[in-house]
Order: sequence, then structure tokens, then C-alpha cells
Amino acid sequence: PSKELKPCKHIVLHMHQVIFNGSNSANTTGAAVTSPVGLGHFAFGQVFIFDNPMTKDQNLLSPPAARAQGFYFYHMKTVPSAWMTFTLVFNSTEHKGTINVMGSNFIPAKTRYLSVVGGTGDFFMTRGILEIEEDGVVPFVYFRLKMDIKLYECY
Amino acid sequence: PSKELKPCKHIVLHMHQVIFNGSNSANTTGAAVTSPVGLGHFAFGQVFIFDNPMTKDQNLLSPPAARAQGFYFYHMKTVPSAWMTFTLVFNSTEHKGTINVMGSNFIPAKTRYLSVVGGTGDFFMTRGILEIEEDGVVPFVYFRLKMDIKLYECY
Amino acid sequence: PSKELKPCKHIVLHMHQVIFNGSNSANTTGAAVTSPVGLGHFAFGQVFIFDNPMTKDQNLLSPPAARAQGFYFYHMKTVPSAWMTFTLVFNSTEHKGTINVMGSNFIPAKTRYLSVVGGTGDFFMTRGILEIEEDGVVPFVYFRLKMDIKLYECY
Repeated sequence: PSKELKPCKHIVLHMHQVIFNGSNSANTTGAAVTSPVGLGHFAFGQVFIFDNPMTKDQNLLSPPAARAQGFYFYHMKTVPSAWMTFTLVFNSTEHKGTINVMGSNFIPAKTRYLSVVGGTGDFFMTRGILEIEEDGVVPFVYFRLKMDIKLYECY
Repeated sequence: PSKELKPCKHIVLHMHQVIFNGSNSANTTGAAVTSPVGLGHFAFGQVFIFDNPMTKDQNLLSPPAARAQGFYFYHMKTVPSAWMTFTLVFNSTEHKGTINVMGSNFIPAKTRYLSVVGGTGDFFMTRGILEIEEDGVVPFVYFRLKMDIKLYECY
Repeated sequence: PSKELKPCKHIVLHMHQVIFNGSNSANTTGAAVTSPVGLGHFAFGQVFIFDNPMTKDQNLLSPPAARAQGFYFYHMKTVPSAWMTFTLVFNSTEHKGTINVMGSNFIPAKTRYLSVVGGTGDFFMTRGILEIEEDGVVPFVYFRLKMDIKLYECY
């Protein structure tokens, strides 16, 4: 039946992360807090914490529609894959409230699916699926993810 | 409709954290496990792990009604804000079971809202909202949070 | 009513973790990314990241039915207890999709209960309880957990 279900709310946003290199603190939105442990070549064990802007279009400099606040870490030896959990924080005339998300972001897949496990404010008690697609990357400097948020339980 | 919903269960507790300073291990209930990364002045990137008592009144020395076990980290450059996830563990004659929580605790706000995303035992499969208010703080030494737990799905 | 509820889906798997010692990278599936902070004797504050195979029987070398990807950390001063969150990733002819889990794994208890808070693919929007039992351990080298996954909300 999941195939037939239609979302009760649908939001598409682009998340931008500018990675800290030690000297770009004015622009940066995310930083590593541990080092890779030396297992394979895909930063196994490295944890990043972030407070990333989310915009309606792909432009980093557009006014943020929300922020994504949370962390991710690389956890595979043979490919890049980032387990993630974060809160989407909305504080605009359009939406006020939060959406809480968790799941595994297997980077080699075109589309990856995370769980929306709760929400507050305008998103009181919501549940759903958050779809991620790669949207642009400059290795070790910047990446952008398209996030397609489909909520199937709304109050 | 969320405004009209009434909780099926409502619990208010005060969470106490005594922060580890390297020599207070007998009393301490939480400790930093990473260092701030040097982004802004609010400990961006610092992760704390805790096993904190929760009491019915504000007194740290009252018998615990539950424990809060989990972690938080600071994630903003310009203000203190702590992303948190934890399990409330009840093991008393009144309640046995757990409540699982996650969300962003934006410290400048009077009230912050986290998601209750699941539970076990007496709180089997529960969902709801956990409201946090600052309840007392001695910087770098101790803080207390009032947690108002409103469960809207009970089995 | 939880006592009478019957799961809509029930899966039993055994999770295997081979712990990184710095020189066993070919076999290892999990590694510490922080050091204990020196509170008590049960590794308080130590965080592990893992990508563990899950098999239908107890044999580490059986073909994996799923993988468990996530992290845990020790958080108690007087006993070993590991707060955990992870994604079960299924990619077989039998199941495709993910199950997201979180909770406190209090190791001294025979059975520990975690929350299944969401899912994707074949496990779209699922919720339930994941029961853990110790299944075998070689300290600092290897451990195996039996995971009994009971889903009570299926779409």
C-alpha cells in the first residue's frame, strides 16, 4: 500500500555544507570532530557536526528556508557512506517548527531514503520519508544535497 | 488539530547534569568526549555523553524517578545550541520502561521542543513531545533542565 | 493492550562485530573513534562506529541477511551499558529497505529493548521493538548480539 499512499505534506529543499578547513570560519557550516581511524580509504570513523542552510533553489546565497542541524559519520571501508541524523529547523512566515530525521546515506546510490521520525510546531508528531540526491560537490570543500521531504502522517 | 489534542500521559521531571572536570568522578554524570573545533565561541563540535538523574522536584539529591542516558553536542557558531538524543530509563514501582527522544535544544529560546519517537515497557510504542526549559545553571559545573513530557500516542 | 498485540512482521538475526585493533582491517567491522574519559571502569565516553553483518544463524561466515550501520557509546560509571542507534540495511531478494533503531542497551540485563522508529522500502514507515540478547563475546575482540525485531506497524 505504500506505493499508493500520497504525502499529506511535501517540501523540497537544497542543503548546503561548507566544510571547515581551519581558516574559513566565516563561511563554514560543518566541521570534522574526530579523525578517520585508518580502515579503508573512505574516512571510516570520521564524525562531522553541522548547522547547514537549506534553500528552495540550488543557490547557497539564497535566503534560507530552514536549517539542518545534526551530525554524520562515515562508516564503510570500501565506499563512502554517511550515517546521518539531524533536525530541520523552520522559523519563517511559511513554517515554524522542526522535523527530526535519521538513517543511512549510502552515497553511491542515486536516491537514498531516510526516516522522518517526529516533528514539532507546524510539523507536530509528523512521520515520513526524506529522499536525498547528490546535487553538487567540491571534494573536501562543499557539497549540496537535494532533500525531498514526504510526510505521510500530519496532524 | 494539535492545539486541541490532549496528552494520554503527562510526566514532569527535572534532569541534573554534573559536568566532569577531571577530578570529580564521584559526583559527575556527564563528560565531554571531543574538543571544540574553534568555530565561534560556543563550543561548536564539542560532544558530551551523560547518564543523568531525573527527579520530581528540583533537588539534585532527591531520589531519582528516572535516568536520562545519551549525548548532546554544540553545533552553532553564534549562540549556544545543543543537538540531543537520549533514552529516559524508568525502573521504579511507578514506571518500568524507556522513552526515546531526539531534537535540537536551542538554548536561547525559553521553551524548546524535542520529539518522543518511541518507547518500551510501560511506554510501549509511545510518541509525543518533550518540552525543555532551563531550570538552573552553574557554567561548566552543573545544569538542570525541566522536562515536560507529553505523550499523545499510548497503547 | 501491548501484551496482546501481535507483530505484523517478525525477523530474528544475529549481529556480529569484529573490533578494530589497528592491524586487523581486513576482518574488522567496528572501531573506537574516541577514548574513554576516565570515569569508572567501563569505558565511559568511548564511541564506536560500526558496519556489522547480520546473519540468520550464529555463524559469522554465513551470508549476511542485512547489515547494521551506526554507532554506540558507553555511558555508565559502574556497569557496562551502550547507548546505540543504527540502521538495518536489507538488500536481498527477500527484503529491500531499511529499519531505523535507537535506545539504551543495558548490558547486565538478559533482554534489552530498543525502539524501531522508522523504515523505508519494504519497511516503509514501520515502528516496533527490537529485543537484544547477548549471543557470544570475546572481550575487546568480537561480540555477537541476537536481535529479535518485532514490527507492530506495517504498511
